[in-house]
Formats: sequence, C-alpha cells, structure tokens
Amino acid sequence: MIHSHVANSRASAPSPTEELRARYAAVRQASASFCTPLTDEDCVIQSMPDASPIRWHLAHTTWFFETFVLSRAIENYQPVNAAFEYLFNSYYNQVGRQFPRARRGLLSRPTMSEVWRYRREVDYRMEQLLARPEELPEELLSVVELGLQHEQQHQELMHTDLKHLLACNPLYPAYRPGTQETHSSTSALEWVAFDEGVYHIGHEGLGFAFDNEGPRHRVWLNAFELASRPVTNAEFLDFIEAGGYRRPEFWLSLGWQTVQAEGWQAPLYWLCDASGGWQEFTLAGLRPLVPHAPVCHLSYFEADAYARWSGARLPTEAEWEVAAADWLAEAGAISGNFVESGQLQPTPAKDAKCSHRLQQLLGDVWEWTASSYAPYPGYAPPPGALGEYNGKFMCNQYVLRGGSCVTPESHVRITYRNFFPPDARWQFTGVRLAR
Amino acid sequence: MIHSHVANSRASAPSPTEELRARYAAVRQASASFCTPLTDEDCVIQSMPDASPIRWHLAHTTWFFETFVLSRAIENYQPVNAAFEYLFNSYYNQVGRQFPRARRGLLSRPTMSEVWRYRREVDYRMEQLLARPEELPEELLSVVELGLQHEQQHQELMHTDLKHLLACNPLYPAYRPGTQETHSSTSALEWVAFDEGVYHIGHEGLGFAFDNEGPRHRVWLNAFELASRPVTNAEFLDFIEAGGYRRPEFWLSLGWQTVQAEGWQAPLYWLCDASGGWQEFTLAGLRPLVPHAPVCHLSYFEADAYARWSGARLPTEAEWEVAAADWLAEAGAISGNFVESGQLQPTPAKDAKCSHRLQQLLGDVWEWTASSYAPYPGYAPPPGALGEYNGKFMCNQYVLRGGSCVTPESHVRITYRNFFPPDARWQFTGVRLAR
Amino acid sequence: MIHSHVANSRASAPSPTEELRARYAAVRQASASFCTPLTDEDCVIQSMPDASPIRWHLAHTTWFFETFVLSRAIENYQPVNAAFEYLFNSYYNQVGRQFPRARRGLLSRPTMSEVWRYRREVDYRMEQLLARPEELPEELLSVVELGLQHEQQHQELMHTDLKHLLACNPLYPAYRPGTQETHSSTSALEWVAFDEGVYHIGHEGLGFAFDNEGPRHRVWLNAFELASRPVTNAEFLDFIEAGGYRRPEFWLSLGWQTVQAEGWQAPLYWLCDASGGWQEFTLAGLRPLVPHAPVCHLSYFEADAYARWSGARLPTEAEWEVAAADWLAEAGAISGNFVESGQLQPTPAKDAKCSHRLQQLLGDVWEWTASSYAPYPGYAPPPGALGEYNGKFMCNQYVLRGGSCVTPESHVRITYRNFFPPDARWQFTGVRLAR
Amino acid sequence: MIHSHVANSRASAPSPTEELRARYAAVRQASASFCTPLTDEDCVIQSMPDASPIRWHLAHTTWFFETFVLSRAIENYQPVNAAFEYLFNSYYNQVGRQFPRARRGLLSRPTMSEVWRYRREVDYRMEQLLARPEELPEELLSVVELGLQHEQQHQELMHTDLKHLLACNPLYPAYRPGTQETHSSTSALEWVAFDEGVYHIGHEGLGFAFDNEGPRHRVWLNAFELASRPVTNAEFLDFIEAGGYRRPEFWLSLGWQTVQAEGWQAPLYWLCDASGGWQEFTLAGLRPLVPHAPVCHLSYFEADAYARWSGARLPTEAEWEVAAADWLAEAGAISGNFVESGQLQPTPAKDAKCSHRLQQLLGDVWEWTASSYAPYPGYAPPPGALGEYNGKFMCNQYVLRGGSCVTPESHVRITYRNFFPPDARWQFTGVRLAR
Repeated sequence: MIHSHVANSRASAPSPTEELRARYAAVRQASASFCTPLTDEDCVIQSMPDASPIRWHLAHTTWFFETFVLSRAIENYQPVNAAFEYLFNSYYNQVGRQFPRARRGLLSRPTMSEVWRYRREVDYRMEQLLARPEELPEELLSVVELGLQHEQQHQELMHTDLKHLLACNPLYPAYRPGTQETHSSTSALEWVAFDEGVYHIGHEGLGFAFDNEGPRHRVWLNAFELASRPVTNAEFLDFIEAGGYRRPEFWLSLGWQTVQAEGWQAPLYWLCDASGGWQEFTLAGLRPLVPHAPVCHLSYFEADAYARWSGARLPTEAEWEVAAADWLAEAGAISGNFVESGQLQPTPAKDAKCSHRLQQLLGDVWEWTASSYAPYPGYAPPPGALGEYNGKFMCNQYVLRGGSCVTPESHVRITYRNFFPPDARWQFTGVRLAR
Repeated sequence: MIHSHVANSRASAPSPTEELRARYAAVRQASASFCTPLTDEDCVIQSMPDASPIRWHLAHTTWFFETFVLSRAIENYQPVNAAFEYLFNSYYNQVGRQFPRARRGLLSRPTMSEVWRYRREVDYRMEQLLARPEELPEELLSVVELGLQHEQQHQELMHTDLKHLLACNPLYPAYRPGTQETHSSTSALEWVAFDEGVYHIGHEGLGFAFDNEGPRHRVWLNAFELASRPVTNAEFLDFIEAGGYRRPEFWLSLGWQTVQAEGWQAPLYWLCDASGGWQEFTLAGLRPLVPHAPVCHLSYFEADAYARWSGARLPTEAEWEVAAADWLAEAGAISGNFVESGQLQPTPAKDAKCSHRLQQLLGDVWEWTASSYAPYPGYAPPPGALGEYNGKFMCNQYVLRGGSCVTPESHVRITYRNFFPPDARWQFTGVRLAR
Repeated sequence: MIHSHVANSRASAPSPTEELRARYAAVRQASASFCTPLTDEDCVIQSMPDASPIRWHLAHTTWFFETFVLSRAIENYQPVNAAFEYLFNSYYNQVGRQFPRARRGLLSRPTMSEVWRYRREVDYRMEQLLARPEELPEELLSVVELGLQHEQQHQELMHTDLKHLLACNPLYPAYRPGTQETHSSTSALEWVAFDEGVYHIGHEGLGFAFDNEGPRHRVWLNAFELASRPVTNAEFLDFIEAGGYRRPEFWLSLGWQTVQAEGWQAPLYWLCDASGGWQEFTLAGLRPLVPHAPVCHLSYFEADAYARWSGARLPTEAEWEVAAADWLAEAGAISGNFVESGQLQPTPAKDAKCSHRLQQLLGDVWEWTASSYAPYPGYAPPPGALGEYNGKFMCNQYVLRGGSCVTPESHVRITYRNFFPPDARWQFTGVRLAR
Repeated sequence: MIHSHVANSRASAPSPTEELRARYAAVRQASASFCTPLTDEDCVIQSMPDASPIRWHLAHTTWFFETFVLSRAIENYQPVNAAFEYLFNSYYNQVGRQFPRARRGLLSRPTMSEVWRYRREVDYRMEQLLARPEELPEELLSVVELGLQHEQQHQELMHTDLKHLLACNPLYPAYRPGTQETHSSTSALEWVAFDEGVYHIGHEGLGFAFDNEGPRHRVWLNAFELASRPVTNAEFLDFIEAGGYRRPEFWLSLGWQTVQAEGWQAPLYWLCDASGGWQEFTLAGLRPLVPHAPVCHLSYFEADAYARWSGARLPTEAEWEVAAADWLAEAGAISGNFVESGQLQPTPAKDAKCSHRLQQLLGDVWEWTASSYAPYPGYAPPPGALGEYNGKFMCNQYVLRGGSCVTPESHVRITYRNFFPPDARWQFTGVRLAR
C-alpha cells in the first residue's frame, strides 16, 4: 500500500513537491557519494547470487524511476535505452522478463560511465517532471517517494554487497579507512518488562511506510521482558568458547545442518589469527574485534542458538514494536548509529541521550525476531507490478527490526519490517534477547 | 511436554495400564497389518531423501520403545542388537550419532525377517514390563503413550512413503485394490463467519498431546470467514485451466521458482493421458480423477496460489482451531474419513452427521494454514533427548491441521499441529479457504 | 563385430548348437547360483548410480535374449511382459526408450519371484529354440553367444555391485564366509624386457571376441619392460606412508582434484582401525589386509600416481597384449585366480605353474593401462542396436586388461578390453608397472 | 622439456639475446594492444570457471616471468608485491598454494591500473636482466622463451574468454567492428591419400617446442585419407537439418548425455532468429552465418558426431602431423589465417598460395583429433614446478592441431599439441574429416 501522505499535505510551505524535489536530489546524490572511493572494477563484480554488483544497484534504482514514474507520467515516453528495461528489472514479472539475478555479474556493458550517463539523463527528466507538479498525478508523487525509499534500501545493500565482495579478496582492501569508536566498556545488560494485553502494531496515518507495515491491527501479548541492549562480541565469544558451534542441542535442526555443511565456527567476517586472537573484517579493513560492540553478521540460526544457550529467546516482532513505541514516546525522535555517522560498524552502547532503559533499538544492527515474515491481517498488496514489491516474499524469511549502521536515518521507522532467510549473514544483523 | 494424564487417572477401571497394554497391542498390530500386502522388496527401498523405507519405519518405532522405555526401566538393560541404536536413531543427537537419513535405503540388512524378529522381541519385553505396572515409574507410562502416538505418526508416513515409491514405478502397482466412493456431487461452498475477539487456543488438561500443542494461550483474532469444505479437484482444475501454473502473479516468489525448476503443471500424482483426461495415482493404482473429492497432494505454494487466484486466502492456525472448537462443541466427538475407513483417498463431502455448517474439518486432507510453524508463547521443550521431538523443527515449515484419510482416528485432535516445508507434496495435503 | 565362429564349425561333434545349449544352461545357472546366499532385500537396492540392483542384472540379461534372439527368431513374438522392454533396456537407443539408470533402485516391482519367473520362461523359450537349430539363422547363433558373454560380464558386475552395497552397511555383512589364502610371502618384483618393433595386436580368427577387440592391426612399440607381477598391498602401503595421498606432485591434475574432493586416503574398502592397523572389506566381510596380495580397488588416478611415485609408469594396452601373447605361447592356456576359485579376492603370487617370468597376468586384478579406450584402426560397430554395445563408450575411459578374481574363466582373453572412467574404484582393479 | 636452442645458437648475429629482447618487447606489447578497445569493466569479470578475467591473464603472464626468471636470476629478489605469488599462480603446486580458479572473478583489486603498473615494473626488471645476458644462465634464457610462448597461449585465451564474456551479454557488444571476408564459395572437398608405414612424429632439434611435443618417435600408420579442407558452416547445417542433434545414433554416449543436459541444438554462438535464419556471435558482434567458412566452436562430441553422420571419422594426431609435414615440405613455411590477419573469425578457403591439395591446415580453426591427450613414448616432464606445465593434464582431454584465427603466427608449429576436454566449445575449434 502506497500512502498518499504527500498529496494530503500539499498545501503547506515549502510545498510538498519542493520538498520532494530536494529529497530526490539528496537521495540520488547519496548513491553517487557512496561510490567515490570505488574503482570501476569494484562496481562490476557479483560476489554471490544473493549480492548484486554496485553497477547494477545504480542502474536498477534508476530504472525504477524510469519504469514506474517517467513512463507513466509522459505520453509516448521514449526510454533512455530500450535494453535496460530487461537488464535492470529485478523481479517485477508484470513489467516483463528479467535478466537472471545470478548472472548480473556477467555484464561488463553498459559500462560504469554509461550507467552514470543513464543516471544523469533520468535525473534530468525527473527534475523536469518534478518542476511541473501540477501535471503530475498525485499517485505518482507517492511512487516518487517509494522510489526514494527503494533507493535507500539499495544504498544499504550497496554497503553489504561491497563488504562481501571485498571480503572475498585475500588482500582485505578497505572501502574507507575510517576511525572506529572503541569504548572500553558497555552498559550492563538489564531486563525491561512489559505487561500483557491487547496492543496495536503496524503503520497508520501520515508519513511514508511500505505496504507490508500495515494495516495497523491488534495483537495479544503475554507479559514479556526485553534486554536493554543487543548482545556484544564479548558475550558471543563466551558462546563460542562454550562450544556453541559444536553442540547441536542449541540449534534448530536446519541451523545445525547449515553449521555442518558450511563449517561455521564464528560469525561471518571473523578471523582467528595464528595466536588465537580474533579479527573482524570491516569496511575499514581487518581490525581487532571490539569486545563491547554489538555482535554482527549473525544468521537467524546463530541468533536463535545464542538465545537458547543463554536461557532466553528471540523477541517476536510485535514485542519489539511495542517496546520501540514505548521508547519513542520518551525519546521523541529517531536516533542511533546510522550510515550518516560514518562508522559503518556497530559501536558499543554509550550513555543514552534518552532516559529510557532500552538502548540501541535503532541503528547499529538489525535485530532478528522470532517472527516469520507474514502478511498482517487484512494486508493486500497494491494492484499492478508494484504489488510485487513485498508480498510475494512472505515465505521462509524472518523479520528484522531497527535498522543498522549502514541504514540511512531518514529510512528508519519503528514499524519497519526488514526480512531475510534464516541463513543470511551478510547484512549487519545482530540479536537482542527476550524472555 | 509429555502430559501425565495416564498417571493422573490410574485408579479407574479398567486400570490405565490395562488400557495402555491393550492400546500398545493394537497400535503395534496396526503397523504389521499395514504390511500384509507388501513384499520384502517393497519394504527396503527409499524413493527420495524425505521418505524412508517401510523397513526403517518398522524398526525405528521399535527402537523408540527400546531406547526411551526399556533401557530406562530395566537396570543393566541388554539391547536386542547393539548396532540398532545407531542404525535406527532418526534425529536424536542426545542419544548418539545417526545413520544418515538419505542413506537409509542403502541397507539390505537387517533383513525384513530380522526386523520382524526385533519387533517381536521388543514387544515381548514391553509386555513383560507393562504387566508389572507397579515397577514402572509414572513418567515412563507417559513415554509409552508418546511411543504409541509416535508409531501412529509413522503409520501415516508408511502410507505416504509407500505411495511415493509405487508412483516411481511406471507399472503403477496398487497397494490394495480398494473401492473408492465416488459421489457424483458435493455440497456447495459456503462461508462460515466468526467474530473478532481474544480466543484461547492450544492444548490443556487431560488426554495426550504433543509438547508443541501447548501451552494453551490467548490470541487476538479479527473477524473472519472459513469455507464450509475443502477445495475440490474440479475447482482446482479451473485454476489449472485458467493458466494457474503459468502465471507468476498468483505465486509466492519461492513458489514460482519451484514451479519453474520442477516443471509443476498439476498436483503430484496427477497424470494427463493422451486424450487430455486426468488420472490420479492412488494406493489403489491409477484411477480417473474424482471431480468432487478434495484436491490432494498440494504443496503450500499451490494451496496459497490457488487461494490468491480465487480471491481468498489461507486460514491461520488460530482461526482454524477456533472454528474447529466450535464444530467439536456441536459434533461432540471426532469423526471423519480416517485410515480406518479403508478409502485411503479423500472422498467427496457427504450429508453431514452433524448440523454444523463446517464439513470435513477432520480427515480426508491435511489443510495448509498460513501459519509458520513456531513455538507457542511460553513453550519449552522437555529436557533430554525427547526435547528434540518437535521444537528443533520450528523453522521454514508451515502448519497443517485436521488429519487425513491415512491418519489413525485415535491420533487426531483439534489442537494437533502437523508441519511440512512449503514445497512438500507427498503427504495428503489440501486446502480450505478463508477470507 | 560379432564373429561367425560358431557357424564356421557347425559340422564337428558334439555339434556347435549342442555345445551352445550346454553353455547356455551353464552360464544362466551361474547367475542363479550367485544369488543363493542373497535375500530379496539384497537384490533390490541400488547403492550408487554406477551400480545396478542384482534384480536388474538378472532381468536385463534375460531381456537381452528376448530382445535380440527370441523376438528376431520367432514370428509375431509375444513378449513375456511388454513393460519389460522399457524397464530392462540398459542403453540401446535403437530398441527404444530406457528407464533411467540412476532410478533402477526405485523399482520394487516386478518382484524377485516375478524376475525368477521371467528367467524361467525365457530359458524355456530359448531351450525350445536351441533344440531346433536348423530353424535358427546362423547370425542368431552368434547373438546367443554374445548374450552369454554379456551375461558373464554382468556376473562380474553382480559381484562388484553387491560388494559396494554391502560396504555401505555399517554392519559389514559377508556375502559368503570364504577362506582366503594368505601366503606369507610373494615373489620378488622383476622386470621382463621386450624388444622394439612392429607388432600385431587385436583379435582375429575363430573364437568369440567383442567387436572392440578387432580388427587385428600393427603397432610400433619401443623397447619396454614389464613388472613380473602386480603391485602388492604392502608396496602400496609404502606409498601411503610416504604421503602419497597428500603430495600433488605424483598426481594427474584431475586425480588430485578427486583426491581432495572425495577425501581419498587409501584404496576403496580399506579401513584404518583405532590402533592404526589396516582392514579390508571383502565379500567375506572385514578382514586384516593381506600384505602380499595384489592391491585392489584402485582408480586409474591412484594406479598412475603410484607408478609415478615409484619411478615407473603404466603399460600401454599394446605393450600388455604383446607381453601376454608371449606368456600364452609358453603357458599354452588361460589360467589364474578367477571367480571359479571361490576366493573372490586377489591372492599373493604363487609358484607359477608356468616357467614364464610374468605372473598373474590373468585373474586376480584388472590391470589399468595408460591407454585411453579408443577404436582400433578400421573399427566399425555392427549395424543396428547391437552396434551400441561398445563403440559409443569410447571416450574418457581407460583400458584394463587381464580379468580379475570375479571374472568367469571362460570369459577371459588376452585381447579382451575392459574399460572404466579414471575415477572408478569399485571394480577389482590393480596395477602392474612398466618402464 | 625446455629445449636449449637459444643457447645453442648464441654466436650468430643479431645475437640470440638481442633477438630475445626484441621478441620479449613484441610479445608483451601484443598483450597490451589486445586490450586497447576494452574498458576496465571488461577486464575484471569471469564468465565461467573455465575462463579467466583479462586482468588475471595480464597479471599471471607477468607473474610467470617474475617467478620463473627474475626470482631465480636475482639474488635476494624482492617481489613487486608479495601477495601476487598467491593471487596469480595458476596451478603450480610446487610454487605454493593458488587462489581458487573459479574465484578469479571475485577480485576487484589489484585494479587494472595496478596490474598495468605490475607489468611495467616486471618489464623494466626483465629488460635490465636481458641487457646483461652474460650474467644470465643459459637455462634461464630458455625459460624466458617459454614465458613468451606461455604469454602467446594466454593471448589466444584472452580472445576466447573475452568472446565468451561478451556473448553472455544480451546486448551482444562487439570487441572490434572488423570487416570479415565473406567469399561466396569455397573449394570442393577432396580426399588426399597417404600410404601405410612407420612414420616419425614429434618435435626434435632446434627451435622452441613444449615438452609435450617430444620425444620424436616412430608410429605405425595404416593407409588413410584426409579431407582437403575443414567442414564448413553450410555442411554442418546439413547435419543439423538432418536431425543431427536429435538422433542418438551419431553420438558418443557421453556426448549424447551432454546434448540432452545442455540442450545443444547448434554450435556455440549460433543463434536462430525469428525467421529461421542463422546468426553467429563474433568478436565483431552478431553477424549472419558465413556459409563457406569453416564451422567453429564445436565440441569434440559434435565434431565426432558430424564425422560419423557423414560416414567418415576424425583423424588421429599422428595422421594429421604426417599430412602436415608433407604439406610443409611443399609450402616451405607456416601460413594461414592467424590473429595477425585481424579477421578473428575463420574464413572460407581461398585459392591456395601453395600447390599442395591440403588447405587451411594451419590457422582458422583448431582441428579436433581422435587422439586422447597422452604422453609420447619416453616423455618425462622436466624437474621442478615447470614440470607441471603440461604433463599433469594428460587425462580426459583430446588433442587439437593446427592453430586458429586467434593464435599468434609465431606460436604455431606442426608438432604443436593443443588439448581440451571433449565438451569444451569456447575455443575456435572445428573439424577436418579422415577415412
């Protein structure tokens, strides 16, 4: 469901379309800025079927505006390049056939300079269009906002896909040197309690949200407690040293199969050096593990096994959202370690700006929930190709909440539902306990 | 959680242990009776990694009693054959290593006659044990009941695994000739409405239930409607003829991938003959499709795609159970087309014995729900190896409700949670719509 | 090419057809005798795609007579069972479609008793036919002989496929208890020299041979030396202890890939027990390795790596045959450790009956040669389906010579060309060095 | 075996080392020239495990000189970059571990500009070294020549790997526009006869050759005939139209399996357009098929099936070389359509400059022979890591002769043995018939 909030508030000043134009420019620029340290070679390779080349992200996000905005808004629209409809369609069957996902890394053409030219041309056409808002149907304004949110999702994927690519290289090249905050301590883990009852969760009202965040609806929750902060690297090391990766009793059956088939012995990107010390590959290169930072790059299987080992469990997404709403009521606004901080790694919990006992709910690491990704009661995808955006992926995936250190701040909401299969590890994914 | 109902009512007449002895004899005999029409060759082959040889089912269910009852009840217990602990352990890591599941079909020894001897010897020892109930700890009586429920589960699997094996054979041999009821009509599909509210679901109190059926707990449900009967073959044919298997817009993304990779064009076991007529492989051999019987051998993907095509959806397991409780209150007792009917295929809905508008909730076909298989709030597996029975499979599977035409009647409950991965088709699985 | 020797000598006494009738009875009986110790369960399982169930061997060899003799000799021939043409066709595209090789183990029907009935019926029809030789075209007599040779090939495969199946079973069941000769010594390895020159190799003249053994033709050979006997287990242990399986410098590139992918550390069927001693699985069960017996169950890769490590090489098939012809001229007749000895394992070299310095050329183990399996100059397969017998397999396989301890004696010739892919290990395959 | 021809002729003028310096400069420059039309994106992608990125070819050939010349010639040699020893080692186990072949396409660093810098630095060091020949051991001069021949091999692979990469792109980009000669006719196919007898084949004497081309040795050949020119596209179309790809009787068993598994219906890079006309992807882009040009991009399986369909066979490599020696005696020097012609596609046979009836033996397409790639009698690889150059690949590959339209002219010899697995199609491989 694409919300009509933009249209609803078109009378205010600066006008919503002016805001949208500014936001269009800012989001599109952020993708370009991400690429500044990259060479053309970095942008063309696909390191695994789940990841895409940077070049593809840049073109696909552009294709989105061309397909869903320009070609609908402009009569007899002439595409920049007719071949791109096929090459850069990700998974919209109703738009047409797609170049196979696993083969995205086999294309050296269009080259990076052609892709940049494609972006510039579409940006020019979009700017022309947004300059004449009176000619633009209201529902297309919503699609522009959707396209920007879509591009922000891909900005996060550009970070994670690039990290995976660089990690394949035995030279362990850094994306940006960076300086990571390495607090020598973190706050003690406390349990924050919530009462049983019927709660409302899900998005409603003004402000953008993806269709999968609604409808807002009631759920019954038993009383529960949520940990005050995510599990840290040091705590996860205890699990490893207790034989966590060798003892099937902590694992889901599928998880144990994966551990054995893949030979997992630690989170993704952890390396044990010759002297037994742990290092971690980051976007700033190989670095010593930061003990008090939230543990990251865990699969659902590892998050769940850790929780079982520690005598706790994962929260459901409803529990998480109820807690987050409570926090937000006190904090007043979104805050956390997002991509804008430049850390590009989760950092230890700091003295909270907010007096609420829950810390780091937003930013740092996506938090696995126990909830399978499923439609909310009454959910229906929008008609047409954009209905393929979310709904058709509601199978064999688990919901993550809260955003990470590579999520844009303006992209985060407490109703936001991210989702990945339970064996995925290349996102910035961690764990907060419940009981 | 293994319930102590047997112990709780030990004072009544006939005594609970007498009842248990009788039930032990009956259930064990049912496994043997199943094999009457089979040759030794039929019993040894594994047709796919998900299925097991009949020989293995017979031995594994026996191993269960030896491992979890006899060796715990008898001091210095001498196993019938020490090698069987390894060979017939299915997945209990805490009992020890397991012979790999996918290789169960590589064993020609122990032969069938040795397996029968193994069963007789364990039955003798169990009878001796059950004849002295005063020496038997109460918790072991519960494990005996668990072992019988376990054997009933495997009796259902023996039907489905045998059907899969026979279907691999181009001669399409019949298990039993059988005579199938082929009503020329079925009842019209109606919608039965339920109100919104907080409901209780899950098992509680006396009577056996698996640990995954509890704890009983509250859920919030929006108002919903449930179809009065399952979807029929004739209705599913409409979906096929409308291009259902060729149109991605009806499918989950994973489902569409599976359709293409596997070349699915109809439910499992359907064959289109040269003249375009449909036949179905049954345990009675190849037969013309019965139009008004419930459609069967659907994956979750197919059930979900059919529902979407028809403008409806799958029910959640909570909705299903609330409806079933309503039905049971009126019907008074479990009834339906179970294995005891000898049909071994779902049959068209008949004039209901019960005035409730819901029909065929129990028996005929397992009904896919939209619910991912997950622990109920407060669920904890029992300690020890038996804790591996259910909990560790709660990932990437979907819940099915209601039992099928090859489920033993005494094994069915309205709180029963069956579960399979979304691409599984070799069980007797169908679909009832909700909206 | 199927030779017409039977026809050529039809005037002698006992008549060739009488001899053929007796031979038919003897060869068919040998297949049945092989099965005496087996249960029906042993006969139905396929342990890997390269192996076939015993049941299939028994039926396929019978199908061969029905397809290539009975249905050609008898007008309006009525097959015993029309379905068998499809089920038991191995690879003859010109006869029709084939049930997939890798799925032969999925058939429980026809049962063993039906297969025995099939054999009896075809034997009866064959005996009727052979009783009226005057009605039988001469070329069909040759096909009868081909069918018997074919069945003898399958008798060898029944031994090797059964051994593979039993070895999959952690109980290590024995086929026959057996008593193996375990000489405490073997003869010293000597080198036997041959001069350079143009030699003739290949089959010519009377007596059966497969088409791939001809035409007889000239080859140029440089001077060479051949080892007096095959490499022994003790010698091969030296290679293992010298790190042979861990040092890539001895291996073909494909061989080294296979060693790593498969984790090979010793020949197939060798087991290192807890105390570091070596045992070997045989058709008589697990037994201590016999140091002076020829090493067995080597792939071409292992044979070649051993040869390179020892400073020698594998012989070409021309070298082997020239040496064997020299030996046969002195020995006068075929002799060796064949299936009739009942050993069913290679045995240490004994005092030779023959004064020739070459020992164990025939029997004990098939000897890998350096020769890729290729057509001899002027080779053309016979027309029709029987042309598919040999020629189409002449790719990516290597020639083996000399027969093994499970080859029937009457099946062995010095021109005989056996062939397997270079990674095959489940045949009784060993190595004789050349230089 | 690396021949000492350079050393043997060191007294002539210009001095051999002067010649070698000039040749070093020319060959190294040719690799750079190849890259002129390429972008960095083109150079980094690996299109399949058998192919390598252009970037890798450029670095690996440089690594060869650094590893086998510079580090041996210079005491305490400091490598340009220590990591490159691992990254750019192809398969020399004796040099050390190798970065996995199938993952070469996962490296975006070192970037192309770093690779060019690496080449310049090694070229500088090599020039310094070659400028002081008196300090250079003679055997290292041979290794320099080996390195140049090695780089020429990779120049051919750069063409074939790039062609494969560009063909993965639905835009079908051209490497160089090019103008292909499209003769409207070709010469009639004639048969050229050779007598039976003992012949010598293999390399001997002065001039570079790879170790696998020797020792020169005798072979016996029966009388044979060789086709005067390769099979053309038009002739191969007849095979397709006769159902060649649908009729198993023409195919080796492995070939038929491959045809079915891969869905082959025509040579690699042929496309059938909507109107049934054939196009071919070339390094100049998609173009109409040239009927009279030699058919190209055939696997051994297709070459062999065509030969069988046409009633002929493939020549052995000995037959081919005997014929080529006869041709060379008359022609006097190597000539043909090599990479220097700039065609980069095989072209129709032209009026021969030479009166010999055999045409196009050299250049245009590599010609599959019936000969499995095996060591010549007496062959031994040189000691050390360079012994891994050829010998360890002598298994499951077939010999090709004559060079192609992307082979450098100075790299071709009539004794040259190229080799590929029988299913390889991405080289410029065709077929000349024999009988």
